[in-house]
Amino acid sequence: MKHARIVFEGATHDATERDGQLLLADGRLVAPDAVTAWLPPLAPTARPRTILALGLNYADHAKELEFKAPEEPLVFIKGESTLTGHRQFTQRPADVQFMHYECELTVVVGRTARHVKRGDAYDFIAGYTVANDYAIRDYLENWYRPNLRVKNRDTCTPLGPWRVDAADVPDPMALALQTTVNGKVTQSGNTKDMIFDVPFLIEYFSSFMTLQPGDLILTGTPDGVVDCRPGDVIVTEIEGVGALHNTILAA
Amino acid sequence: MKHARIVFEGATHDATERDGQLLLADGRLVAPDAVTAWLPPLAPTARPRTILALGLNYADHAKELEFKAPEEPLVFIKGESTLTGHRQFTQRPADVQFMHYECELTVVVGRTARHVKRGDAYDFIAGYTVANDYAIRDYLENWYRPNLRVKNRDTCTPLGPWRVDAADVPDPMALALQTTVNGKVTQSGNTKDMIFDVPFLIEYFSSFMTLQPGDLILTGTPDGVVDCRPGDVIVTEIEGVGALHNTILAA
Repeated sequence: MKHARIVFEGATHDATERDGQLLLADGRLVAPDAVTAWLPPLAPTARPRTILALGLNYADHAKELEFKAPEEPLVFIKGESTLTGHRQFTQRPADVQFMHYECELTVVVGRTARHVKRGDAYDFIAGYTVANDYAIRDYLENWYRPNLRVKNRDTCTPLGPWRVDAADVPDPMALALQTTVNGKVTQSGNTKDMIFDVPFLIEYFSSFMTLQPGDLILTGTPDGVVDCRPGDVIVTEIEGVGALHNTILAA
Repeated sequence: MKHARIVFEGATHDATERDGQLLLADGRLVAPDAVTAWLPPLAPTARPRTILALGLNYADHAKELEFKAPEEPLVFIKGESTLTGHRQFTQRPADVQFMHYECELTVVVGRTARHVKRGDAYDFIAGYTVANDYAIRDYLENWYRPNLRVKNRDTCTPLGPWRVDAADVPDPMALALQTTVNGKVTQSGNTKDMIFDVPFLIEYFSSFMTLQPGDLILTGTPDGVVDCRPGDVIVTEIEGVGALHNTILAA
């Protein structure tokens, strides 16, 4: 099942997808075009306590950035305030030279996870969504771990449109990813090319910290990042998970 | 006023301090020794969306670590799962050589803050608490921004005991900080020695992101960090804010 969180007729609703429409808890069906606003599809009872994001987790992207592939996951944490929803707007700061999208498979943790082995990792996953983890490259002084001005701005992490139940994503490690800018394909890859795959990441994180229901793991992006300009429409899409639309605005 | 969040007789309570006791909403007074557990003193209606922490924000500590003082704040984000409360236990991982405390004045944001100038910064602060931002130094490969195995383990960020209203901390930039290990003073400093002071930090963060009510800013630690061993009792204390007790356990 696919879950969304939307604003419709002045109220916030948790909805599920039915035949291309949004089914509300009160039984109403809403056409996607009638939605006032799509919110990040966080589980209604489990706001994330920790939002983890991987850097350089596809070898081709690391190569594109002229960076040696890491031997251990390069991870940073994001604040919840950086999230926004499907069909929302992301601000490009004034006077920057290079702002790029990053299409990323995002894991939604479903159960409290501590010392989980990779063979059991999928039991702890509630579902998946798509993130576009924008980066303002001008402020990056160190590839090692990006700073807040690169990765933690308001509206710079669109998430959605759907949270798809894990049962409906039979093999998350073999999903095509694609980004288009104004309809032209600029990034394409496959989750099979991750350096540290999803079961590894669950084992790794849970070896030294507790993952809580609702926590998010943004698993990194393949190569093919380009500068995004005001007015550009960016669609980050992952096979079987969703197509996340975003428009760049001048700050 | 001083606020705490405690477990008492099987329930969680938001309490205030009165004459050294804890006043519950139902009028009962509880002696500190009768508290079952102290929780992080987060505002009950405002869980943090972002927990910001400063690295190397006291020149003497940067010097102690043989590091040049930064020209811009060195900031990392922490997940909420790393927090624990007053009089709780923090695990020292097996087979590590150096785990140290860090006594830190912690700002609790009170109002949504965006593009705030330093002259107005205090209007956006609800109060202050004490953090002990433990670091597992063995895993630090880069001073620039610590990784999760250094700074984001379970129980490695005690917070409390009190959230003190801003009105009761007339000058947060002139507070003595002190840490004792088993009763012996090992760290002493003063918030006046911060490189980037609290008004600067509010202006800096709010220049590129929104600070939300309940967000926390851990403002860094002065010099005097030493290795902590299982059984050690660490008290991090800030003048007028509180004395936060913690005991190290072997993992």
